[in-house]
Amino acid sequence: MKNILIGIDLGGTNIKVGCFDSNLKLLGKTSIATRLRRADMGPQTVVERLSAEIGRLVGRCGLKTEDIAAAGIGTPGPADYKAGIIINSTNMPAFKNFPIRQLLSDKLNCPVAFDNDANVACLGEFVAGAGKNITDMVFFTLGTGIGGGIISGGKLIRGSSGNAAELGHVIIYPGGRQCNCGQRGCVEAYASANNTAKRAKEAVENGEQSGLKKILEQKGEIRCEDVYEYLKNGDALAKRITDETAEALAILCINMLHTTDPQRIVFAGGMIAAGDILLDRIKYYFNKEIWKLKKETVEICFATLGEDAGIIGAAAMAREKLKAKR
Amino acid sequence: MKNILIGIDLGGTNIKVGCFDSNLKLLGKTSIATRLRRADMGPQTVVERLSAEIGRLVGRCGLKTEDIAAAGIGTPGPADYKAGIIINSTNMPAFKNFPIRQLLSDKLNCPVAFDNDANVACLGEFVAGAGKNITDMVFFTLGTGIGGGIISGGKLIRGSSGNAAELGHVIIYPGGRQCNCGQRGCVEAYASANNTAKRAKEAVENGEQSGLKKILEQKGEIRCEDVYEYLKNGDALAKRITDETAEALAILCINMLHTTDPQRIVFAGGMIAAGDILLDRIKYYFNKEIWKLKKETVEICFATLGEDAGIIGAAAMAREKLKAKR
Repeated sequence: MKNILIGIDLGGTNIKVGCFDSNLKLLGKTSIATRLRRADMGPQTVVERLSAEIGRLVGRCGLKTEDIAAAGIGTPGPADYKAGIIINSTNMPAFKNFPIRQLLSDKLNCPVAFDNDANVACLGEFVAGAGKNITDMVFFTLGTGIGGGIISGGKLIRGSSGNAAELGHVIIYPGGRQCNCGQRGCVEAYASANNTAKRAKEAVENGEQSGLKKILEQKGEIRCEDVYEYLKNGDALAKRITDETAEALAILCINMLHTTDPQRIVFAGGMIAAGDILLDRIKYYFNKEIWKLKKETVEICFATLGEDAGIIGAAAMAREKLKAKR
Repeated sequence: MKNILIGIDLGGTNIKVGCFDSNLKLLGKTSIATRLRRADMGPQTVVERLSAEIGRLVGRCGLKTEDIAAAGIGTPGPADYKAGIIINSTNMPAFKNFPIRQLLSDKLNCPVAFDNDANVACLGEFVAGAGKNITDMVFFTLGTGIGGGIISGGKLIRGSSGNAAELGHVIIYPGGRQCNCGQRGCVEAYASANNTAKRAKEAVENGEQSGLKKILEQKGEIRCEDVYEYLKNGDALAKRITDETAEALAILCINMLHTTDPQRIVFAGGMIAAGDILLDRIKYYFNKEIWKLKKETVEICFATLGEDAGIIGAAAMAREKLKAKR
């Protein structure tokens, strides 16, 4: 019966695929490398390998490719989500003006939903994770950059050109740090995992005392994980860097509260491995700086689905597309 | 026939009322004072007078009260919009925990829609003014404070508790000017009409040279209109104050673009009387500070309905409520 949903999370390193029933129950999942070791594959090859892999996955679940009702795919931006085209991708240089939605739809012989990876992960957490049983949610991924997603009245906000919720590029310190996007003072330029690590490195290079100096000397770099490890050991610089990250994220939370009034604000991405030591500081600055006109009950928390958020969200998007068609 | 819509804009000074047909064509309008000269009327009295006035207005349009299908009302916050209760109002101290929606509904014998005045004016501009023929819009009123409204995919974003789009309280300068709401660095603390005037007054009091000094000495205050009048005459302080206001509003525009991706950003309220001299500076800072990842085509413009936006929006909201009931 044609009622299986496929969720695809296309990243720079791996492509994760999940096979779901119509209630979004996971039947099986798999993962393949986005690039082969020796050569950067063209996007055509990637789609060939991906659809072959989907065939095998469906087979392992005791089903046939013909049973696939719809698929969803999330990719990093920028893309033309309405047209179904990956315009450009920093981590996948071969994917230039690539009409991924149509190609995948032809291969799988089903409708394909396509959106950016942060929106897709946001939808995943909304239907099956930290956003269950609410109607309004704001979602951030803290990784190389900061991605965002907004659910309002149970639906993703996509915007007029599909580029809503680029929340890493909300300016919180005008005239501040230079962001890769060309703006100054974006929250991403302070509080992404990469920029948290970068601020620590800059401080050490400027002669600030910290155990992180040893890390920089030994490894030639400081990673975000190093900052949180030294924070746990009481390192003063690691504490200051974490506090700056937490304050920047708290201001972003306040601004989003006043914008879409969510019940929950959910953080995801590699950086949440830092745990409560980070979450508690975000909440501290939020409570310190929020208005006093009324008591706010918004809950600030971590995502719960981990790496599966992308495939679940993509499958949920496929299901939405199917409903809209009917 | 029961197909007339009533739109009510309840302000601190006046209550404006419009009578519309089911296509939102204005059949007639009127206005009464919110308070009588000698005494601050209780809200019950206001509702009595308001419904009597609606009766007269409908009569002047050749119709009967029984023809009213639904009414909409916009009021300043904070309110519990879901419960239909005005909690508190700075400019209408007698309206405390007042169940306005139910009372009005009983008086007019029809369903009543209730929302905050900025959302209502936003909807008015969306259906009949600067937002016609688009799907995604952000709206700001520049007055005593800064109010906001967001239309996404053709619908107002209301949020989980009806308090979305409190856009005057988006923080753009953390640790900056104290806002009445208790936060620091809100855009309202810089760029509302009142705070634009206040910044000019502070500068003059701090000894800055400006023709506005004479105004302050003569009148004991500087109003926003004074700033724009001196700006037209080339006053250097008026120029700096205007630029700071424009830059704050431009940053707000950039942040909203990255959040809900509108086709148009619309400014309304008393301050837009300043004209292109203000709008051009907002656009200048927007273009200077926006990211370079992609070309943005969002249009920044002024509202077109003037004072009627409130009654039109309230009538549009009444129509929506009616549709939802059917």
